[in-house]
Amino acid sequence: MQSAIDELEAKGKAAKAASRKLAHLPTEVKNKALINIAESLVAREGEILDANRLDCEGAKASGMGEAMLDRLMLNPSRLQAMAQDVRTVASLSDPVGEILDTRLLPNGLRIERRRVPLGVIGAIYESRPNVTVDISSLCLKSGNAVILRGGKEALHSNSALARVIKDATGEAGVPSGAVQFIESTERALVSYMLKMRENIDLIIPRGGEELVRFVTENATMPVLASGVGICHTYVDRTADLEKAVAIAFNAKVQRPTVCNALDCLLVHREVAERYLPTIAREWAQAGVEMRCDERALGILSSNFKVASASEGDWGKEFLALIAAIKVVDSLDEALEHIERYGSGHSEAIITEDYTAAMRFLEEVDAACVYVNASTRFTDGGQFGLGAEVGISTQKFHARGPMGLKELTTYKWVIMGSGQVRP
Amino acid sequence: MQSAIDELEAKGKAAKAASRKLAHLPTEVKNKALINIAESLVAREGEILDANRLDCEGAKASGMGEAMLDRLMLNPSRLQAMAQDVRTVASLSDPVGEILDTRLLPNGLRIERRRVPLGVIGAIYESRPNVTVDISSLCLKSGNAVILRGGKEALHSNSALARVIKDATGEAGVPSGAVQFIESTERALVSYMLKMRENIDLIIPRGGEELVRFVTENATMPVLASGVGICHTYVDRTADLEKAVAIAFNAKVQRPTVCNALDCLLVHREVAERYLPTIAREWAQAGVEMRCDERALGILSSNFKVASASEGDWGKEFLALIAAIKVVDSLDEALEHIERYGSGHSEAIITEDYTAAMRFLEEVDAACVYVNASTRFTDGGQFGLGAEVGISTQKFHARGPMGLKELTTYKWVIMGSGQVRP
Repeated sequence: MQSAIDELEAKGKAAKAASRKLAHLPTEVKNKALINIAESLVAREGEILDANRLDCEGAKASGMGEAMLDRLMLNPSRLQAMAQDVRTVASLSDPVGEILDTRLLPNGLRIERRRVPLGVIGAIYESRPNVTVDISSLCLKSGNAVILRGGKEALHSNSALARVIKDATGEAGVPSGAVQFIESTERALVSYMLKMRENIDLIIPRGGEELVRFVTENATMPVLASGVGICHTYVDRTADLEKAVAIAFNAKVQRPTVCNALDCLLVHREVAERYLPTIAREWAQAGVEMRCDERALGILSSNFKVASASEGDWGKEFLALIAAIKVVDSLDEALEHIERYGSGHSEAIITEDYTAAMRFLEEVDAACVYVNASTRFTDGGQFGLGAEVGISTQKFHARGPMGLKELTTYKWVIMGSGQVRP
Repeated sequence: MQSAIDELEAKGKAAKAASRKLAHLPTEVKNKALINIAESLVAREGEILDANRLDCEGAKASGMGEAMLDRLMLNPSRLQAMAQDVRTVASLSDPVGEILDTRLLPNGLRIERRRVPLGVIGAIYESRPNVTVDISSLCLKSGNAVILRGGKEALHSNSALARVIKDATGEAGVPSGAVQFIESTERALVSYMLKMRENIDLIIPRGGEELVRFVTENATMPVLASGVGICHTYVDRTADLEKAVAIAFNAKVQRPTVCNALDCLLVHREVAERYLPTIAREWAQAGVEMRCDERALGILSSNFKVASASEGDWGKEFLALIAAIKVVDSLDEALEHIERYGSGHSEAIITEDYTAAMRFLEEVDAACVYVNASTRFTDGGQFGLGAEVGISTQKFHARGPMGLKELTTYKWVIMGSGQVRP
């Protein structure tokens, strides 16, 4: 264990040293390195897939479920998709060096805020090996060094990918130490890593709720966490019901396994009898199971997959073709429900009432608030940010979809001609 | 102890509830409340000073030193200065509701980022009672509720000030619960408070290094910390020596007890013989003690208050009329010294060499980097931010002088007309 800690400490120091150089690396070099990574992922397919096979065999032997196995498994087309994502990062504009604002003070001092990398980013993640490539490329483009700690079950795959990245970036002239991969699977290393405030400027946990909570509660440096999405869509008294059907259908069905999918439908009582049977019919055809409060249950025929909602169904992230449904008496009741059960991710109102729309946008405390659109749009790509680091439900530093800029900070640059403070 | 925890929990809930209303409170109401506070500080002077007398007597009895006693003590002119600071906050523009950016997507979705308060801010601070008023007014203006935990030695003063604030804000129509003060002095409450992630969105520690470290290491929510300032001024080979004398003099002498004052002077060897005697003469007249490396000691006559620097003098925040002096061979050596010993606060180069200036600005990793100006300018007021929450040496969320905006976050607002994700 001590040797693993020593090694981790050494990696921390090396990453810090590399980060000093990375901060001033020309965009061209970074892009060249990214293109090299993309090309190597395809060129070194055999080596990567061999390593992945070892992981998959180990996982099968240890009884890993189908869904998890699928997340772990790589194949040529998945490698090509990963390569394509890296090319996308290369094509984005470099955030480093951007001038955020500038002013000339009356005493002649010129002050500007200049965007700079954070320094060293620690990433702790679970089974999907593509995260190794994903985080590395985002960190590289934003001028940060990175220390990667992947899941035990993907160790061979991640090691192979890390080797490919190291070679590809080294060839392009990226300082060695820029991308560090932790080979040891000692669990205690994670706790140790979370105390390395001197050499790690930011921790990004990517994985289940438990991992994110552990990291958030134990890290001594800042954490950039993607959170749970418990998303509501509220169909107001004045909603255009045709739009409301299309939007709720899209929000639930288009991709039910992701954080911005609809979990709970709230419907104003005045439109419930007209609206609910229509959306229920559409949802039923798509295989959606509906967990209803008493009033909704009274409206919906038992032809559909309906059931009585239990208390645990409110505020639950289903990540599946399941929706909770509740009839409310007013916008206020909807707002209260969202405040109580929402996770601050994405919340929508469907309404034609101007004041209701404005109140919803103003009063709902969430990363993304919508009027008359599907919560499925909460996504860095959809919002025009290019690549996405994740979707933050925290309020500090970054909220909602996080792009490259969220991996940076700024420095104040002051240019004078001899000024002193009176 | 349990009753104190229950009370703290109740304060947390009340603050959270108040924060929902505060977020939409009109600027006029907030300004009215601030003016009320300013007026009450003067009108209720007797009550406040009586309470402060109790604290001062207690502190004297317990053997508190003169400097600390002075920080604790209030008098009519200090109350007036506090009132003036509150009026300044009232005069600043309201950050809440500002649109940070907006775009129209090809599918017709209109997306904007709107500035909103963080929610509930917890403040943990030491002896100066003015912090109670200071933080309360900044939180109020930025639409945040606040939970205050002051030092034991200032309990009576802080309680009296909190009462004044509560009354003054209540009269103006600010929701009760917006400003909460913890009366219990149980030390364990601080640890408990640092775990109240559900109801506290941000912790601000204001005090000595030990307090800041304890909070940073134990808080489960984000921390906005003001850090230690170990500030260097490097006089380059091509410096205009007249400017270099004026700037180093100002940076050390104008107010030596603050974080942006000069701690260490680095001088290029080619100008050391001409420069050092001049600045030393000026500094000596102002009573500055100089702790020199061997080469500087060789240059400076023993007429001045000079001594040999020990290893501990490099990277030390003196907060007094003491400066460390080192002669360096090159810009690179200066950069290395700053990287090794600086605290990432404020660093300056004095030079007429364009490339040296650009390299310094680019390569020094600090909140504020200067060319040809005194580091004493690192200050929210001097930078034109209005009131200052503190000066951050962290990189996340806020760096350098922090104004009202740094007490806010943003939400994504998406306005559609029925859009669904393809």
